[in-house]
Amino acid sequence: MFDVVIIGSGAAGYTAALYSARYKLKTLIIGNQEGGQTAFAHDVENYPGFKSIKGPELMSRFKEHALEYGVEEKIDEVVAIDRTDDGIFTLKLSLSGDEIQTKAVILTVGTKRRKLGVVGEEKFDGKGVTYCATCDGFFFRGKVVAVIGGGDAAATAALYLAEICPKVYLIVRKEKMRAEPIWVEQLEAKGNVEFLYGSHVKEFHGDLKLERVELIDGKSLDDVAGVFIEIGSTPNTALVDKFELEMTDKGFLVVGKDQSTKIPGLYAAGDVTNESNNFHQISTAIGEASIAANSVFEYLTAKKGGK
Amino acid sequence: MFDVVIIGSGAAGYTAALYSARYKLKTLIIGNQEGGQTAFAHDVENYPGFKSIKGPELMSRFKEHALEYGVEEKIDEVVAIDRTDDGIFTLKLSLSGDEIQTKAVILTVGTKRRKLGVVGEEKFDGKGVTYCATCDGFFFRGKVVAVIGGGDAAATAALYLAEICPKVYLIVRKEKMRAEPIWVEQLEAKGNVEFLYGSHVKEFHGDLKLERVELIDGKSLDDVAGVFIEIGSTPNTALVDKFELEMTDKGFLVVGKDQSTKIPGLYAAGDVTNESNNFHQISTAIGEASIAANSVFEYLTAKKGGK
Repeated sequence: MFDVVIIGSGAAGYTAALYSARYKLKTLIIGNQEGGQTAFAHDVENYPGFKSIKGPELMSRFKEHALEYGVEEKIDEVVAIDRTDDGIFTLKLSLSGDEIQTKAVILTVGTKRRKLGVVGEEKFDGKGVTYCATCDGFFFRGKVVAVIGGGDAAATAALYLAEICPKVYLIVRKEKMRAEPIWVEQLEAKGNVEFLYGSHVKEFHGDLKLERVELIDGKSLDDVAGVFIEIGSTPNTALVDKFELEMTDKGFLVVGKDQSTKIPGLYAAGDVTNESNNFHQISTAIGEASIAANSVFEYLTAKKGGK
Repeated sequence: MFDVVIIGSGAAGYTAALYSARYKLKTLIIGNQEGGQTAFAHDVENYPGFKSIKGPELMSRFKEHALEYGVEEKIDEVVAIDRTDDGIFTLKLSLSGDEIQTKAVILTVGTKRRKLGVVGEEKFDGKGVTYCATCDGFFFRGKVVAVIGGGDAAATAALYLAEICPKVYLIVRKEKMRAEPIWVEQLEAKGNVEFLYGSHVKEFHGDLKLERVELIDGKSLDDVAGVFIEIGSTPNTALVDKFELEMTDKGFLVVGKDQSTKIPGLYAAGDVTNESNNFHQISTAIGEASIAANSVFEYLTAKKGGK
């Protein structure tokens, strides 16, 4: 029996684990993707204290920091959460088949990449169409690529790719990028980034792998070997559907100031929530996660005291 | 004319500056105590990514990180803020006599140490009575000391002092410490910490310097050379009194989810606010600060667009 199980091993998860363990709570963290979204970040330059650090390196520091305090970790996937009337949660894991019992849960399950939804996207997934420049960019070095999106993720992906590819098309649906101006300025300073504003993909073409990108305006990019779709993400809330938690219209979990949900003992933190003014950063994820751990500590203390 | 001036150079301040500068805003940070409260922290062990780091070292990393992006810094004190109807703020500085103009302000002025309010406290301030173990502890090495308080600040101060002093009295008003259990456990493991629960100071005695601590229960600590008062802090809001901002009953600034106050262009972040469930940590301060910078960026962008 654990005091708290944290589901999701990204920045929020490791922080919640670190704080929980410092409260002397018996803590387990379960995730099937160590480092979460940050593990896919090529460079992190806005986590205070580190001018520039690779995403996976930062997350391995977070992990070591949490494990220093005796946090247990399982690389596994939670596929079901049950809660009995006495407030004990049972978690079912898919890989090990284990069932875990815990008095409290902190959900730090983050978000998943959004799909474009055009013809050929599925067919060429992993065969030229990808959703992670950091993970897959290297395979396209020396080749012409395209990035789709107008936010920070698209901008930073394009910046990275511009360093290893002779040419990068940046396909932006709107007339302007909404990415941080510093990224846009850096992109404009690159000689090999071509901005295609007010444009988007109609269809991906090819035989066994992607060969051509057809745009909505009739234009065709015939030299593109790889496309990186960086158009945001949706919250991973399927696991808690059964609890009918309150959500925003975009599907983010609505939590209280103490990161609580309406289910006693069930808390959430990080990108999956609507907190932090919907500003999804490592800085805000760790703030929410430390609050959630503090709330779990107070919840369990109050329970012990019979309150 | 600056885009944004950040008042206060602690963890929240440097983070707000870093984020503002990454938004390409012309950014100035003004503070008279670099590093804020964290500069007084002996060891920081709960900022994810650093298992253990001295407070001043962490803050110097925050500062360098912000200055990397062209943030200007003034070591000075803001003594007055005026705002004209066109939304421009004028800040008066006490040391330089400068007047600074800016389109937006982020207050990250934190809190100040709370006093005990007993006879002799003022008389022996700096002569045996102190409010910062990290700053002054070393002067009392080899001597018997007392720490007053029951929270994390008191616990960590006592832990530090127990390493350099033969004996540490820990005077706790309640029957139990409210500090993190991990700190309490570590304190109990020390052989030289004596817990005085349910006790507090009646008067400080001595001639030119502190010689004796009289407790409320008639007990007297006759061997104490130094007392460290670690009983919390109050928000530094005097500077914005004139704006009649909403405050909690404990004096913390009430801000919106975007860290805004009711005055357009005036934002607040960090320990001075009621946000983050009143859980005042470096982790929550940087979350709030990054949100505030994002809000300032959106505020100035909207203004530029004539909205």
